[in-house]
Amino acid sequence: MPTTLVGTMVNGKINYAAIAWVGIMESDMITIAVNKGHYSNNGIKEHKTFSVNIPSVRLARETDYCGLVSGKNVDKSGVFRSFFGELKTVPLIEECPVGMACKLADTFDFPQHDVFVGEIHEIFCDDSCLTNGKPDFAKIDPLLFILSGRGYWKLGERVADAFKVGKELRKTSE
Amino acid sequence: MPTTLVGTMVNGKINYAAIAWVGIMESDMITIAVNKGHYSNNGIKEHKTFSVNIPSVRLARETDYCGLVSGKNVDKSGVFRSFFGELKTVPLIEECPVGMACKLADTFDFPQHDVFVGEIHEIFCDDSCLTNGKPDFAKIDPLLFILSGRGYWKLGERVADAFKVGKELRKTSE
Repeated sequence: MPTTLVGTMVNGKINYAAIAWVGIMESDMITIAVNKGHYSNNGIKEHKTFSVNIPSVRLARETDYCGLVSGKNVDKSGVFRSFFGELKTVPLIEECPVGMACKLADTFDFPQHDVFVGEIHEIFCDDSCLTNGKPDFAKIDPLLFILSGRGYWKLGERVADAFKVGKELRKTSE
Repeated sequence: MPTTLVGTMVNGKINYAAIAWVGIMESDMITIAVNKGHYSNNGIKEHKTFSVNIPSVRLARETDYCGLVSGKNVDKSGVFRSFFGELKTVPLIEECPVGMACKLADTFDFPQHDVFVGEIHEIFCDDSCLTNGKPDFAKIDPLLFILSGRGYWKLGERVADAFKVGKELRKTSE
């Protein structure tokens, strides 16, 4: 899964949490599963907004740090440089190539996690990570998370065209 | 996102759909967002079960094919060799290194998608893809999907230890 940094305002302060248990529901709706003991949940419930930022591999250390320490005990507002878009309760991360400012659309109550559904209100992508005006993940270099073996991984190379490579098989089997 | 193949029984026949809009909610609960026009939805609603299989890069062609054609028009039961675990309405794919047999725990009604929540009942992993008894994603070689640019991508190398690499930063900032 892609590792993300979820930005919130909690008790008037910027906070960032590392979350890899994410999901896609619709083209403009994503989920983040945040453990009920986490600090971010309060900010999301209060403001009904949050950001989902995609860090690059070069931010592995800072991202992991945001997963190791809680905003309850440590002020993480200075780990990154922050900026705001239209939503004034949604801190976004300058250093991350991609950031999505979300409005809370729904919350699903799972046993251990609050699953927050975010409707994407604004997307920010560094110009340096675009190719022909579209986000290019080879340039974004996302930090992938695999729980088995507790590791961060890099994205490899593009291997095939989706919605195309399977057409060969269609010709032979239909 | 990881590309998956969702296995169902629809109208008494095995069917496989390619789904990359997945999510993790809990350690044993995952979601698949299936477009409401798809054929698989009927089988999931009827039997309240489905499988989520993880294809390797070498299955790009077959996986893409399962995304290009609908079970409404084409019999996809022979694209892969199938097997069953304890749940007799959950076909799993021999050729995929990882398969999860799921019971339907909930369904979320999104505008364009039925989002099915699966509680993982059984997991199968090829012996050849284990290292020290755990799934090794370097061996699994998952087929990653990136909508921007409509491509399949390979997983790259492991770059850092999660829950560890950030500890250096903790020492300096606390």
